[in-house]
Amino acid sequence: MIETRNFKEIIDQYKVIFFDAFGVIKNYEGLVPGVDRTLDYLEEQKKKYYIVTNDASRSPLQLAQGFHKMGLHAVREDCVISSGMLAKEYLDLKVHDGIVAYLGTPNSAHYIESSGLHTLPVGAVDETNINQVNALVLLDDEGYDWFKDLNKAVNLLRRRNIPCIVANTDGSYPLNANEISIAIGGIASMLESIVGKRFIRFGKPDSQMFMFAYDLVRESFPGVGKKDILMIGDTLTTDILGGNKFGLDTMLVFTGNTLQRDAELRINSLGIVPTYCCESAVV
Amino acid sequence: MIETRNFKEIIDQYKVIFFDAFGVIKNYEGLVPGVDRTLDYLEEQKKKYYIVTNDASRSPLQLAQGFHKMGLHAVREDCVISSGMLAKEYLDLKVHDGIVAYLGTPNSAHYIESSGLHTLPVGAVDETNINQVNALVLLDDEGYDWFKDLNKAVNLLRRRNIPCIVANTDGSYPLNANEISIAIGGIASMLESIVGKRFIRFGKPDSQMFMFAYDLVRESFPGVGKKDILMIGDTLTTDILGGNKFGLDTMLVFTGNTLQRDAELRINSLGIVPTYCCESAVV
Amino acid sequence: MIETRNFKEIIDQYKVIFFDAFGVIKNYEGLVPGVDRTLDYLEEQKKKYYIVTNDASRSPLQLAQGFHKMGLHAVREDCVISSGMLAKEYLDLKVHDGIVAYLGTPNSAHYIESSGLHTLPVGAVDETNINQVNALVLLDDEGYDWFKDLNKAVNLLRRRNIPCIVANTDGSYPLNANEISIAIGGIASMLESIVGKRFIRFGKPDSQMFMFAYDLVRESFPGVGKKDILMIGDTLTTDILGGNKFGLDTMLVFTGNTLQRDAELRINSLGIVPTYCCESAVV
Amino acid sequence: MIETRNFKEIIDQYKVIFFDAFGVIKNYEGLVPGVDRTLDYLEEQKKKYYIVTNDASRSPLQLAQGFHKMGLHAVREDCVISSGMLAKEYLDLKVHDGIVAYLGTPNSAHYIESSGLHTLPVGAVDETNINQVNALVLLDDEGYDWFKDLNKAVNLLRRRNIPCIVANTDGSYPLNANEISIAIGGIASMLESIVGKRFIRFGKPDSQMFMFAYDLVRESFPGVGKKDILMIGDTLTTDILGGNKFGLDTMLVFTGNTLQRDAELRINSLGIVPTYCCESAVV
Repeated sequence: MIETRNFKEIIDQYKVIFFDAFGVIKNYEGLVPGVDRTLDYLEEQKKKYYIVTNDASRSPLQLAQGFHKMGLHAVREDCVISSGMLAKEYLDLKVHDGIVAYLGTPNSAHYIESSGLHTLPVGAVDETNINQVNALVLLDDEGYDWFKDLNKAVNLLRRRNIPCIVANTDGSYPLNANEISIAIGGIASMLESIVGKRFIRFGKPDSQMFMFAYDLVRESFPGVGKKDILMIGDTLTTDILGGNKFGLDTMLVFTGNTLQRDAELRINSLGIVPTYCCESAVV
Repeated sequence: MIETRNFKEIIDQYKVIFFDAFGVIKNYEGLVPGVDRTLDYLEEQKKKYYIVTNDASRSPLQLAQGFHKMGLHAVREDCVISSGMLAKEYLDLKVHDGIVAYLGTPNSAHYIESSGLHTLPVGAVDETNINQVNALVLLDDEGYDWFKDLNKAVNLLRRRNIPCIVANTDGSYPLNANEISIAIGGIASMLESIVGKRFIRFGKPDSQMFMFAYDLVRESFPGVGKKDILMIGDTLTTDILGGNKFGLDTMLVFTGNTLQRDAELRINSLGIVPTYCCESAVV
Repeated sequence: MIETRNFKEIIDQYKVIFFDAFGVIKNYEGLVPGVDRTLDYLEEQKKKYYIVTNDASRSPLQLAQGFHKMGLHAVREDCVISSGMLAKEYLDLKVHDGIVAYLGTPNSAHYIESSGLHTLPVGAVDETNINQVNALVLLDDEGYDWFKDLNKAVNLLRRRNIPCIVANTDGSYPLNANEISIAIGGIASMLESIVGKRFIRFGKPDSQMFMFAYDLVRESFPGVGKKDILMIGDTLTTDILGGNKFGLDTMLVFTGNTLQRDAELRINSLGIVPTYCCESAVV
Repeated sequence: MIETRNFKEIIDQYKVIFFDAFGVIKNYEGLVPGVDRTLDYLEEQKKKYYIVTNDASRSPLQLAQGFHKMGLHAVREDCVISSGMLAKEYLDLKVHDGIVAYLGTPNSAHYIESSGLHTLPVGAVDETNINQVNALVLLDDEGYDWFKDLNKAVNLLRRRNIPCIVANTDGSYPLNANEISIAIGGIASMLESIVGKRFIRFGKPDSQMFMFAYDLVRESFPGVGKKDILMIGDTLTTDILGGNKFGLDTMLVFTGNTLQRDAELRINSLGIVPTYCCESAVV
């Protein structure tokens, strides 16, 4: 079984910490016990932290409020970096007018609206508006009828040559201790293969996610470089692979997708090596 | 534009014809006009033919009855070879007892039942019966709630180490002149990638489909070899690739998935070359 | 650790045995000790056996002679089924004249020649003969200059729209206890992805390999059905997956690619379940 | 045929231009005629430009010198951004000591050496040094024996759990008007699939390449944002997809991989839409 290190001794070496949310800060049962002490400790030590999450179902404000409800009052909106923010930036820069069709909840869509654009659930696309649809965004696995609306999304992409943006690359997510759910990233791969077009994906392990966070760090913390940042995650193929590639030191914790008893085998078989392994992100 | 050949002169050179169904014999509007004359001509000439179709939504009898309703009375049940028949053979040989869970209509499931096995829609799998489930079969894209039952299928495959049989490999199928529908083969690829297990697929271009038809040919028509059989289809990646690989001569027709104006480009870019191209399978 | 069964008790239940060669009958050190007693026992019991191997580097006669040199004198040429035989059948049926270019040793090419065809190493293709080249066959990873001839093969496939046949689907093979070698199947995937065309692959787990053997069984052993045949192999993704899909009972042995200590994990993670597990194919 | 726009009118709208090198500035015949006037015009207009290239075979200085030899004297070393620079940054940040084994020319390796690291061709890895090897970098398709060294690289990655960095993601590159060559990115995919580990890839369309260039822009040209930058390239799947995803406006030119007569079809089938199409990057 892989050896774990002392969490506190490690974070003491860094100026900025990036946390994955699900499996590190919280899981399906609520907060990971003790993680509030970690955030308090970081505040005391004047260290900066960001929560870097593949989540496009809610806005950063709503994500922060979700942490507050769980009792993690320290998390501010501007500490949350979500893949939905990248989708929003893309739309701001690249889609100047018309309609953005979406798969997701109305809540997830509200956040990505911007001046000149309005959003419409795929289910409401029809002959009167289809020619104004200038992008399709895949936000969440909930909020629509899969059979009806996934088929409609396929035909929309065949009829209109528009970008399809995937705002969360995860293929599945844990629902409880035993069950998982198909995530929008898994649905996206099916749609992409059926229409044969190249979708635009945002979310870890893609570097754009880390770059977005790194830009915020540099703005508010001049002089901090990649060597000063530690990425903490529970998933080798997103958090650790992406962090490593971006040039960050990385820590794998065992409170989520990766169990300590499987860690060595998975690290060896995937060839994705974290800088450190710790039981949890708890001081 | 690719040159087409005279259909009648070509089929005169073969003793047995394999037809794909959708896009060759029929399409979303009904029978391909004139195709009844082709079957009559083959009967007159004492040539044998089979309809070799990636379809697991109905039994061969029901598929034959479907042709009758469209006015193609010549088609007998024993001339229809479906990928559902291969799924049924697999279950007969490899699954000896217990429950076969399925995604599809009750109709599609009825056909694959056999002595010792009973079928159950995935939606009806629960704690009282899950330990008796010894296989999962993906039959059709209709007959269930995608959101609820696709997630349930994922968790069934995570909990029980059972074979998952995909009885139709097509990723999509044409719904009308402009629209397509996601087929069970497309759904299967999503589930397979999420659970990370290897599914068992039946249907063109896989050779087992052609072998099943070829075995029937040899039984009832001794002395006929692969050189005497022509495979006619509208899809390069299933009918033509599979027929070529099995060692048959192949004919591409332009009444379905492949348009004459695109044929040359697609043949060159895929490297799948039919022996002949004809406008349609009409004498 | 997965439980193993008594080998002799299992084979007593079957009339015909299919053996994989590498990892079951022999490995890089020579014969698997005791396997000669197994073949003698099968002869005594009047059971039929075939060696079903992904190997296109030599003819069945040469493969049989190879077993003789190792001391396994019982193996006759007509008991050896190789993926090279399928490549040869394809060429006999589908390529009627001209040149078959190949990557492999001259030895591997000699076997696939047939009336009307002659073979030429890819390295000898030039402006004087390129227009006569009607197929490319990938036979072996040895016998040519990888840098020069793999690049030449890519450009041949871009210039001539001809079928590319892969006569061995394995991506790699064991060289000794610690090292592996890239096999022609691995090279084929690289070439296929670069030229963007669909290659034709022969070899387990593809059913055509099993069908070829099954046809021989039925000819010489009338009345034998799939239920009477056991496939024995060391590799889940080729021998066991292919055997299962073809409807055969399957046995995994631990003298090759799969170690007993890893078997349970690999069976569960791949979802490929052998009917039996035995230490070796030794009575 | 797709309509093209006037090049000069378009670049007048942007403050910074990113050029792909191969197929835009130069091709296998030398400079694209007239492209020197474009760079002169940009200098006159006080616009900044960068050459953003998937090339790890030489250092930025050597790449700039290559342009000088072709007569493009304006190109300075600090205007050249190569995927090799990202590989170097990765090694600087993540590999602190030991040996970096490489596949490529000695020239390509020299550039990535840094304090504490030394480089060694894969062919020179042996029992005396293998335990000091802490990374493998794939730099170029030339400079080694493919058969011997690709097999050696596979076994190195099986024995040592080290990162494998791919410093150029292209699968192939044009050699002359009719022929292509397998590039190191194509070789990398084969090795990755054989060893089953996840490699780290740098190069367009990955965002890290654009971010590296964008960081330089922001340092030397404060106030410039993504809206002020135009990415010009000849390849939809790297230059245009990557530029679009990063939020830049993009221009496809027809002096390289994409021909004007194919452009519309490829744009539609891939779903990768450039902001503009121009015949060439020539004012």
